[in-house]
Amino acid sequence: MKRIKSTIFNLIREDDENNTAANVFDGIIVSLIVINILAVILGTFDLPLWATTALSYVEIVSVIIFTIEYLLRFWCANLTYKDKTPTKARLKFTFSFMGLVDLLAILPFYIPFIIPVDLRILRMLRILRLLRIFKFNRYSGALTAIGEVFKRKKTQLLSSIIVVLMLMIIAAVLMYNIEVEAQPDKFSNAAASFWWAIATLTTVGYGDIYPITILGKILSAIIALLGIGLVAVPTGIISAGFIEQIEQDNKHNANECKKEFCPYCGNKIE
Amino acid sequence: MKRIKSTIFNLIREDDENNTAANVFDGIIVSLIVINILAVILGTFDLPLWATTALSYVEIVSVIIFTIEYLLRFWCANLTYKDKTPTKARLKFTFSFMGLVDLLAILPFYIPFIIPVDLRILRMLRILRLLRIFKFNRYSGALTAIGEVFKRKKTQLLSSIIVVLMLMIIAAVLMYNIEVEAQPDKFSNAAASFWWAIATLTTVGYGDIYPITILGKILSAIIALLGIGLVAVPTGIISAGFIEQIEQDNKHNANECKKEFCPYCGNKIE
Amino acid sequence: MKRIKSTIFNLIREDDENNTAANVFDGIIVSLIVINILAVILGTFDLPLWATTALSYVEIVSVIIFTIEYLLRFWCANLTYKDKTPTKARLKFTFSFMGLVDLLAILPFYIPFIIPVDLRILRMLRILRLLRIFKFNRYSGALTAIGEVFKRKKTQLLSSIIVVLMLMIIAAVLMYNIEVEAQPDKFSNAAASFWWAIATLTTVGYGDIYPITILGKILSAIIALLGIGLVAVPTGIISAGFIEQIEQDNKHNANECKKEFCPYCGNKIE
Amino acid sequence: MKRIKSTIFNLIREDDENNTAANVFDGIIVSLIVINILAVILGTFDLPLWATTALSYVEIVSVIIFTIEYLLRFWCANLTYKDKTPTKARLKFTFSFMGLVDLLAILPFYIPFIIPVDLRILRMLRILRLLRIFKFNRYSGALTAIGEVFKRKKTQLLSSIIVVLMLMIIAAVLMYNIEVEAQPDKFSNAAASFWWAIATLTTVGYGDIYPITILGKILSAIIALLGIGLVAVPTGIISAGFIEQIEQDNKHNANECKKEFCPYCGNKIE
Repeated sequence: MKRIKSTIFNLIREDDENNTAANVFDGIIVSLIVINILAVILGTFDLPLWATTALSYVEIVSVIIFTIEYLLRFWCANLTYKDKTPTKARLKFTFSFMGLVDLLAILPFYIPFIIPVDLRILRMLRILRLLRIFKFNRYSGALTAIGEVFKRKKTQLLSSIIVVLMLMIIAAVLMYNIEVEAQPDKFSNAAASFWWAIATLTTVGYGDIYPITILGKILSAIIALLGIGLVAVPTGIISAGFIEQIEQDNKHNANECKKEFCPYCGNKIE
Repeated sequence: MKRIKSTIFNLIREDDENNTAANVFDGIIVSLIVINILAVILGTFDLPLWATTALSYVEIVSVIIFTIEYLLRFWCANLTYKDKTPTKARLKFTFSFMGLVDLLAILPFYIPFIIPVDLRILRMLRILRLLRIFKFNRYSGALTAIGEVFKRKKTQLLSSIIVVLMLMIIAAVLMYNIEVEAQPDKFSNAAASFWWAIATLTTVGYGDIYPITILGKILSAIIALLGIGLVAVPTGIISAGFIEQIEQDNKHNANECKKEFCPYCGNKIE
Repeated sequence: MKRIKSTIFNLIREDDENNTAANVFDGIIVSLIVINILAVILGTFDLPLWATTALSYVEIVSVIIFTIEYLLRFWCANLTYKDKTPTKARLKFTFSFMGLVDLLAILPFYIPFIIPVDLRILRMLRILRLLRIFKFNRYSGALTAIGEVFKRKKTQLLSSIIVVLMLMIIAAVLMYNIEVEAQPDKFSNAAASFWWAIATLTTVGYGDIYPITILGKILSAIIALLGIGLVAVPTGIISAGFIEQIEQDNKHNANECKKEFCPYCGNKIE
Repeated sequence: MKRIKSTIFNLIREDDENNTAANVFDGIIVSLIVINILAVILGTFDLPLWATTALSYVEIVSVIIFTIEYLLRFWCANLTYKDKTPTKARLKFTFSFMGLVDLLAILPFYIPFIIPVDLRILRMLRILRLLRIFKFNRYSGALTAIGEVFKRKKTQLLSSIIVVLMLMIIAAVLMYNIEVEAQPDKFSNAAASFWWAIATLTTVGYGDIYPITILGKILSAIIALLGIGLVAVPTGIISAGFIEQIEQDNKHNANECKKEFCPYCGNKIE
């Protein structure tokens, strides 16, 4: 039994043990996730009956496979977190981010069997299957580096987002007051005006709503120019974060090598 | 009396003395500011009578609280600026940025009682209440870092803004001359043309005004491409500013530690 | 014979031997490429018969010249790759990137003589002539530096592209479900919704498709704001890459000079 | 005579000799330039006769002042370039960038007196007066820093522009072939298609021209996503340029101070 468990764990483990069987297993799961995403997308088209039937078979087969995978991961959790008791390890897995995503990928299929949920809501819940895509994270390591930059610069990025939100609210209320008389149907309230503020600040500019009065155009021009800053500030923060990371890596490497000689003088360090 | 003042000051002071009562007070004020912002936004919707009445009560209650807060801050000003005489401290508070913002948050409510101002203007003045949102600044420290980068790079950013403005004026006048005959209703004067220049340079592109002649399209293409530079230059300046800041912090830290040993040789510094 | 080959090789070689004849040859080839691009562009206009005839003459003449050039490069391949046998050198040239581009530039002209291909497809293939423009790469060296930055940051850039694609798919499926009832003709399926997602995330915003429901506008606002990140993250990565490159060059230069004296103390390094 | 010339030179010289009279003179010239720009802009509006007359007086007065200023600068050129003979100094001034701009600012006024030029063309030439705005350059020094970054990164920026242009041409010709049948009135030729390519790559997206076929939308999506790179690459290059500049300044400063003590060890440098 223990040997079977160990073999299964080697198959589903996520670290980089270069095991051919594990790689094949990974390939199958990734392919299945991609097929599921395509099925969700295809499901939004008008399809003939045979195609809809085929999609529902894909649905059933993949849910079965994902359920087995989930149960195996749950069972092997104590091998993933070796320092914990089996129960604690399983709890930790269940409430880990990837554990929850895996659960959310299969749950929408089972819920209607337990509680009779409205079908329309079910169709919306099915979108959660797309979260299976996040399993890819497990395979790409560079995302962690990007994530770390965001974590390190969290406060600065959040502060700039707050400032931008404040600016948007002020701009939206101002613009409502300026344009409501000229275009009462378009700038009907501050929410409609906020929609304009976002389209302008992010420079999307759909063209469904824009000021027509002179004062409104002046405000819009200011907001559009400030939108440049909306790009420049987070870009600057993130650039600095990436460079900081590189420098820390360099320093780390330098410290590794520096044990014996000063890299600058070449003198031995006693 | 002095003890009461000291207690109140500890409640409203802005530095990071971790006092539970002060934190509760901060929470109430921040909540009230958020409620006020929501009230301003809600006020732009078509509301039933009871809602309008409710909003006016929110207005009165919050103005009363903000007024008391303002008076307390004014009274305790000599504890904030300890090195000044009470009168000078109060003057300094009144004309400090946050002092003026606090005053502007309550003044629009009182003015109509003194001078009979037109109601429409009053409604516009009410937008100033949104400035209360800047009180959040007091709570977020990372903004200072961003602000410092802008301060350090002020000259470079201003210069690039001036160049962009010059470019816009030239483009607007040129485009007016090119397009006025083909679209006399849209490119009716240089101001309308300037509106096009901003929409193009900031890449917002609402689609309400764009050239239709070949020459106009060529100019528009050039301006749109220069718009890339409009993003790239300030982003580059700000990125450099953030990196400079990190390096200065590192150097500062290095200097702190460097008092005894050279960080490179490890030799003792005499 | 050997001397002729050597002379020809000096004419067509791509390294920076400052040979007047080679420069003249380069100039002719580059001019011919530019003329060909203009011919392709002009060919899309409604032209009188004499112009169409002129363009076909340009086509024939340039294909002849490019064919001779290609054959000469093929013949002289063993002088380019001196360490290989003539056959291996020619194979290497044929399958090198520039070799394939050169071949693709002339092949579409000859294919119809061998296999009778449909004329419409032929006209499409003619676009490949534009690839001749990539010959410019040979003349500009700075592109390599840009390419190296992309190569070094490949994993990070790819990861961020995958995240963006995931985000787009989720947004597209969500938006389809939100908007399909309000605008069944515009958001007819997830593909149409994906078109909206791209226009919004890249902040292009043509204005042909946008949400009109409140929930749809909220999702659109979130996607537009995330679009800022779509610019900020790769920009940050690429900025860091360029700075890393500069620092490595500096370190390289420093190492070159550092052989005798410590650049910091000025002490001789034994 | 020499003393008068010296006094005038001190008035019009551009270096930072803090002379009150020179500052007043600068202020007058700058104000006059701004007034002239406003006059050009105002001239595009429908104005009553008295205003048009007023504008023509502004024109005459400012041209007279600028002419006198130009002649004085020409006369004092040998004091600006002290190491040259008067004739060479004047030639150098005439063909310096600012000298040419100054000449272009007054020439359009005088030309019609010599050669009878068509009035419409004259009105277009008047736009050149806006170039007077570049005189501001003389007053802002930070622009030089920005200019230096561009100069240092010229090759890399140019290379990326060439790649972008190539991409645009390929995209435009491809899109023309894809869309010409579905929208023959919009994508009528490669030039119209190029207009679409620019609007998409720069993310302006006016919404006057966009693909409607599936293949066209796929190509448009790819181009819009590549547009992100169009922003990211020059931004990265420019960011790196600004950081390089800061580091060189730091190194320069470090070298200045480093004369006596090693900044790392604190040891005296012999």
